[in-house]
Amino acid sequence: MAFGFIERQTKNFINIDPLQTGGRLSEDAKKALLEWGDGYSVCDFCTGRLEEIKKPPIYDFVNDALPEFLGCDVARITNGAREAKFAVMHALSKRDGWIVIDSNAHYTSYVAAERAGLNVAEVPNTGHPEFRVEPGKYADVIEETRRKGEVTLAVLTYPDGNYGNLPDAENIAKICHDYDVPLLLNCAYAVGRMPVKMKEIGADFIVGSGHKSMASAGPIGVLGFREEYAEQLLKKSGKYRAKEIEFLGCTARGVTIMTLIASFPHVVERIKQWNEEVKKARWFARRMGELGIEQLGDRPHNHDLMFFESERLYKISKRVKKGRYFLYRELKKRKIHGIKPGLTKHFKLSTYMLSKDELEIVIDAFDEILRRHSS
Amino acid sequence: MAFGFIERQTKNFINIDPLQTGGRLSEDAKKALLEWGDGYSVCDFCTGRLEEIKKPPIYDFVNDALPEFLGCDVARITNGAREAKFAVMHALSKRDGWIVIDSNAHYTSYVAAERAGLNVAEVPNTGHPEFRVEPGKYADVIEETRRKGEVTLAVLTYPDGNYGNLPDAENIAKICHDYDVPLLLNCAYAVGRMPVKMKEIGADFIVGSGHKSMASAGPIGVLGFREEYAEQLLKKSGKYRAKEIEFLGCTARGVTIMTLIASFPHVVERIKQWNEEVKKARWFARRMGELGIEQLGDRPHNHDLMFFESERLYKISKRVKKGRYFLYRELKKRKIHGIKPGLTKHFKLSTYMLSKDELEIVIDAFDEILRRHSS
Repeated sequence: MAFGFIERQTKNFINIDPLQTGGRLSEDAKKALLEWGDGYSVCDFCTGRLEEIKKPPIYDFVNDALPEFLGCDVARITNGAREAKFAVMHALSKRDGWIVIDSNAHYTSYVAAERAGLNVAEVPNTGHPEFRVEPGKYADVIEETRRKGEVTLAVLTYPDGNYGNLPDAENIAKICHDYDVPLLLNCAYAVGRMPVKMKEIGADFIVGSGHKSMASAGPIGVLGFREEYAEQLLKKSGKYRAKEIEFLGCTARGVTIMTLIASFPHVVERIKQWNEEVKKARWFARRMGELGIEQLGDRPHNHDLMFFESERLYKISKRVKKGRYFLYRELKKRKIHGIKPGLTKHFKLSTYMLSKDELEIVIDAFDEILRRHSS
Repeated sequence: MAFGFIERQTKNFINIDPLQTGGRLSEDAKKALLEWGDGYSVCDFCTGRLEEIKKPPIYDFVNDALPEFLGCDVARITNGAREAKFAVMHALSKRDGWIVIDSNAHYTSYVAAERAGLNVAEVPNTGHPEFRVEPGKYADVIEETRRKGEVTLAVLTYPDGNYGNLPDAENIAKICHDYDVPLLLNCAYAVGRMPVKMKEIGADFIVGSGHKSMASAGPIGVLGFREEYAEQLLKKSGKYRAKEIEFLGCTARGVTIMTLIASFPHVVERIKQWNEEVKKARWFARRMGELGIEQLGDRPHNHDLMFFESERLYKISKRVKKGRYFLYRELKKRKIHGIKPGLTKHFKLSTYMLSKDELEIVIDAFDEILRRHSS
């Protein structure tokens, strides 16, 4: 049989995939994996619901630490950011209602809306080269959409997963509220990487991802919201009075919550270094720019997730033997992973938690690849 | 801060909690935990969807091994058995439709139906002492319910999580089909423990739990179904053509799928020992019976999950200092875990994968506790 234990090929690579840089486990999380690996291990002392478990301290984590961390009133653990978004959309929305989302949204915002039976209206971005989502456009799209039906929710991706842009969320929250539309912030690339507080921004819901940005095994997500939505979101089963319908009783009922808790002190600390991470990202973008590989999106950039454009790499791909796979292969040879096979003209990457030495290796690799293939 | 790495108190205990006995990791799964612990580790070579990932061999596992193992046409990975049930109910059902479930069903079958906006009709069991679910009752309840609205699905819990009863699923499937109602088998306590094949039984959907019964870290579940439901269940997003709406694109996108795959050869092997497990369970029930602790449910019993009744322990609880918590504490002193604190008259436990030596310790503990407190 081909199954059983399988090695991870990229284990010793420098991994610049934005999906991977924020989800690397802390040392405590690695220990937690083995301690809590068994199936339902966290349920030994369950008294009815995941968030009520006191040993291990899931109760304290969900009821105290997490709301403070997210800057919200109430928090829940979910099976991921997408599952959190779906829970909100499903609980709040009438079928055939409308949802307004930014056009930089992760595909799961769209798919969650489809699953919840909602129509989607998109707020356009400014296009090449910045792809910014501007607050005023939220007003335009909400105005327009209201003519077609009820707008039950707006979603803002903060930052988005393509360009790493951080829009003016505060202003967007104000605009949504002017129209009595609650705002959900998809912070899958923010919560756990950078300081972000839901109520300081003025939003109504906040969603984060443990495996993407909180140094946790996955899948696991966090959801925060205002007290006023608790009744709708935490509605209990008619028959099983302890069980919350929208979360099917319990969500991340296993080792994932224990790695999230294990990494939490590490995550709280690393957020304090966010300014350094931004500086490092800008330095990296500048160095790439010197090679003619241009960073698109917000400039100067405010996040470790960056999108690059390179006409030179694209031109090379047109004439080399491996075609558009040449870049992937050249990087692989140098034990650098994370740019999708086949991409040369446009690609994204992340510098998060990578050392300058590691990033120098990445920059040198691009430099070398360009030189080697310059005709 | 109180978080970080936390010890599991029950680590070296004999754990007879039915939730725990089938979810203990295999050695390969423990290795997989560390290898694949990082957040989105399985997505390094993703080409668009979890089930399409060839490195690690998730594609082969989901498309070949799992359908064969479950005896179905198509399989998917979910975030758990409850999430699998919800996906089916949500995809198939019209709002305000009806679902028929056995009264021994796990609470999540009920809650999933509530979340999907369905009305629930329950098939009664035969009551004390056997609590059996009889095929004929499915006919009665479907007949009755059809007068109120459309019955879109029937659910049978096989075995149930209270008594460990295995109803006549084949016959129930036939009856459901006589009424053109598809049948979903909730096999959270069967798949991974005992041989069970969906199509041999004649059902339409089968659900299993990785963390409950497949020696996997959780949460993770498996879902199998007939080809004819593929269109409804695997409906793709209108905008993102690779993404399946009901699974929000990808489900167990992290270490949980890798522990499931790591334990799979072990699980395939252990199922071959099922007859031995049943013999052991019967032997244990007989020994408990000799102490006056009676096994309820199917007799002779056909599963490791068993429900016991003890008037003697109950009477003791009425007069001892710790009251109804005395049994829990007495067992804890002996490093035996898994009977819920406060229970004495009725409790369930599981003998699965425990050695006879370990079970002798459990039996001796009950014997000693009864003697010590006999007045």
